[in-house]
Amino acid sequence: MNLDHLPGFREFYPAPLPANESWSLDARRHVFEAWRRVAVRYGFREYDGPPLEPLELYTAKSGDEIVGQLFNFTDKGDRAVSLRPEMTPTLARMVARQERNYRKPIKWFAIPQLFRYEKQQKGRLREHFQFNADIFGETGRAADAEIIALLIDSLRELGLGSGDFVVRLSSRLAWQAFFERNAKPGADPAGFFQAIDKMEREPPETTDGKLALAGCTLDQVKAYVAAAEPTPDLREILDDVCARGLSDYVAIDYSVIRGLAYYTGPVFEAFDRKGVFRAIAGGGRYDQLVKMLSGGRADLPGLGFGMGDVVLLELLKDRGLLPEFGAGAEVFVLSEPGGSRAEALSLVQWLRDRGCAVDHSFTPQKLDKQIKRAVELGCLGLARAEGSGLRKAWCRNLRTREEVSLDWEAIPGWVGELRSGCQQKIGQPVG
Amino acid sequence: MNLDHLPGFREFYPAPLPANESWSLDARRHVFEAWRRVAVRYGFREYDGPPLEPLELYTAKSGDEIVGQLFNFTDKGDRAVSLRPEMTPTLARMVARQERNYRKPIKWFAIPQLFRYEKQQKGRLREHFQFNADIFGETGRAADAEIIALLIDSLRELGLGSGDFVVRLSSRLAWQAFFERNAKPGADPAGFFQAIDKMEREPPETTDGKLALAGCTLDQVKAYVAAAEPTPDLREILDDVCARGLSDYVAIDYSVIRGLAYYTGPVFEAFDRKGVFRAIAGGGRYDQLVKMLSGGRADLPGLGFGMGDVVLLELLKDRGLLPEFGAGAEVFVLSEPGGSRAEALSLVQWLRDRGCAVDHSFTPQKLDKQIKRAVELGCLGLARAEGSGLRKAWCRNLRTREEVSLDWEAIPGWVGELRSGCQQKIGQPVG
Repeated sequence: MNLDHLPGFREFYPAPLPANESWSLDARRHVFEAWRRVAVRYGFREYDGPPLEPLELYTAKSGDEIVGQLFNFTDKGDRAVSLRPEMTPTLARMVARQERNYRKPIKWFAIPQLFRYEKQQKGRLREHFQFNADIFGETGRAADAEIIALLIDSLRELGLGSGDFVVRLSSRLAWQAFFERNAKPGADPAGFFQAIDKMEREPPETTDGKLALAGCTLDQVKAYVAAAEPTPDLREILDDVCARGLSDYVAIDYSVIRGLAYYTGPVFEAFDRKGVFRAIAGGGRYDQLVKMLSGGRADLPGLGFGMGDVVLLELLKDRGLLPEFGAGAEVFVLSEPGGSRAEALSLVQWLRDRGCAVDHSFTPQKLDKQIKRAVELGCLGLARAEGSGLRKAWCRNLRTREEVSLDWEAIPGWVGELRSGCQQKIGQPVG
Repeated sequence: MNLDHLPGFREFYPAPLPANESWSLDARRHVFEAWRRVAVRYGFREYDGPPLEPLELYTAKSGDEIVGQLFNFTDKGDRAVSLRPEMTPTLARMVARQERNYRKPIKWFAIPQLFRYEKQQKGRLREHFQFNADIFGETGRAADAEIIALLIDSLRELGLGSGDFVVRLSSRLAWQAFFERNAKPGADPAGFFQAIDKMEREPPETTDGKLALAGCTLDQVKAYVAAAEPTPDLREILDDVCARGLSDYVAIDYSVIRGLAYYTGPVFEAFDRKGVFRAIAGGGRYDQLVKMLSGGRADLPGLGFGMGDVVLLELLKDRGLLPEFGAGAEVFVLSEPGGSRAEALSLVQWLRDRGCAVDHSFTPQKLDKQIKRAVELGCLGLARAEGSGLRKAWCRNLRTREEVSLDWEAIPGWVGELRSGCQQKIGQPVG
C-alpha cells in the first residue's frame, strides 16, 4: 500500500519530532493555545462551522472563477459541495441566522482548518489552520482598533516583539477617494485596486501598465503611498491603539489594500520587519458582506482578520521562539522488580487523579532500565511507593538528583515545584 | 442565497446558546479539554493527520463496500480521495512511517473530526469528533489495562461516576475459542462474530438463524455470556484495573465483541448504566493492523479506543453535568462619559496583559448602559480608572456589590478572587 498522504497536506507528529518531519503537533498547540488565550482575554467567544459546505456559499461571493481553487465535488445526494477555503462565508451565515439572539457587538473567533486546491509549489500547502476573529454590529473605529490590538497581542503572546513585526494600516476608502480624484471617467476601480495590491510583487512596468488603464501613473501612486497621510478614520484607530501602548506595532502604509473585493473601510496586514516571509495576517472592515451573503435577511457591519499557522510557525522557528517540548510525563512511577505492582499502580492512579502527568513501565523491568526510560521521556522526577499501605514514596528530582521520602499527599506539591522550576513544556498542559 | 448548512453537519455556537440551536462550542471545548487533560496525565502525546486521504487507505482495510459510506470523490489531480471516516488507518500509517524514531511503547492520542455519508436519520450525523487513544509496541496486558483506565478517567473527569457508566470487557480470543469448540467444520467465523455483535439489537430468531449457519444455537451463546468466566488475559486486565481503584467501572460481558474485523484480543465498550444511549466508546487490541496497512514494512502490536462527542454530549446533558458557560469576560472596564478614553483603554490593556478576560464599550455610553452590558456578558466585576495617571481604579464585585479602590497592580489578584469564588466557566479558559 502507498504510505503517502496527499500532496499539500500535513501530518503533525508529537515531540521529539523526527528529523525528516516538519510539522510538530506540540508547536501547533502552542500557537493555538496562545491564540485562544488572547481571544478569551479580549472577550471573544469561540464558534465553529462545518468543514464541508454547499459550493454556492463560495460562488455567491466570489463568482465561479473560485471553483478552480476549491476541493469541490458532488456528494452522494447530488449536492454540489466544497471543503471550506475560508471561514468568513460560514461565519456570515451563522451570524445572519442567529444575530437576533446575541447582544451586539458580537465578538467571535474560530481556528478552522481551510482547504484550497493550489498549484503545487514549494511551501504552498493545500490546507492550513487559520485564527479568525471578527466583530459584528459596530461601526465605530474603536472596533477596528480592538481587532488590530487583538492581532498584535496574539503575536506578542508568542514572544514576537515590535522588532519582529508591524501591522501596516491602510484604507479602502482613502484609495477610493484617490481613485475618484485621479482616475479617468469610466475606469474600473477593481482593476485599479488589484494593481495596488500586487504592486510590491510585480515589476514596475506591469503596475504602471495596469494603472494607465485607469488614467493613473505609478509615480502618482508612489507619491501618495510615501506621503502616508492618515485619514481621520485611520487617525482615530491609531490614537486608540496608541492609548493601549501598542504604537510601536502599527504604521500607516498605503501600499496595503487587500486583494478581496468585499472590504469597505480600514484594511491592514501584519508583516515581519525583515521582509522575509509572506504576510502573517490580514483583515479589515466589510460592512456589506453579511447583507450580501444573507440575501438581505440580516444587515450588520463587520470586520475581522485571519492569521494562518504556516507562515507564523516558520517565523517563530526562525526567531527561535518555539519552546522545546518534553516527550512525555512529569513523573515516572517505578515498580520494584519483584515488589508489589498493585502498590505502584495505586500510586500512579493517585497522582493522575491529582493532575500530575505520570508514566510507568508496563512490564517488570530492572530499575535502571525504568530510570533510563524516565529520562528519555523528559520526566522531571521519579517516585517509588515504599512498602504496602504505608502511603509514603521515595522521590527523586531528576535535575538536581535530590532525593526525599514523602507522604503521597505531599507529592503533587513536590511535582508542582519541579514543574515551576522548569521551562520545558510537558505535552500540552491545558486548564 | 440558501442559508442552510449541509444535512448531518453541525454549527457550534457560543454561549448563551440560542433556543433553536443544539450544539454549543463551549460544551464541545469542555469535553475536548477534559479528554486532553486526562490523556496528558496518562503520558499520551497528541498527533494529527489530514482530514482528506487517498481512498485506498480505507478500501485496503475494509474492502470496496465501505465506499458507499464515504465522502469520496476524484480531486482536480485525478486522485481518488475521501474525507476520513476513522482515524486508525491514518494513525497506523504515521506509526508505520516513523516508529523507528519513537521509543516504545508509543502512546498517542488525537481528537479528529470524522465523516461518514450515513443515511439521514434522527440523531445520525455525518460528522463527529472522536477522542482516539492508542498504544503501540506493547503486547503485555498492562497496556490493555492502561487504555481502559484512560477511557474510564476521561469519563470520570467529566463528572460521570460508576453509577453512570460501565466498561464491558470481552475477548475476541475467547469467542475464537468458543467458535473452535462449538462451530461445525468449515463455518465462517466472521459471520458468527457479526451475529454476536448484533445480538442485542436484533430479534432472537434472526440471531438464532445466523448462529445456525455456524452450527451453534442462541441458547449456547447465551449460556456462555451468562457464565462470564474471565479468560486469564481478562483476569490480568481486571486485576490491574482494580489495583488502580477502578473496579466499579468494569465488568466482564461477552455480549460485547466489536463489529470491526481487525481486533485480535481483548475488546471493550463503554455504556451508560441506564441503557438509554448508544455505546459511549469502544476499542480493543489489533496486533496485525500496522503490518497489514503498511504492507509489512512495519509490524507493531497496537490497541486503542475511540470515543465520539455526540453520544457523550447527550449523556452529559441528560445527567446535568454540563456546566453553565459565561457569555463573555470577567471584568468590564467602564469609560467615564466625557472622561479620558485613553485612561480606560490603558487599563483594559494593562489587565489583558496580565491574563484577565476584559471587555469594554466601543462607544461613549452612559454608565448604567455599560453596567447593564457587563451584567449581560456575565462579568464578575467592574473597574473604572480613577483620574489620569493615578493608576488606581474603583472596582465593584458584581455578585456581592462590594466596592473597593485598588492600585492597578492589585486588580489581577482581585479578579483571581472573583474567579475562584465562581463556578461559572468564562469562555474557554486555557493554560
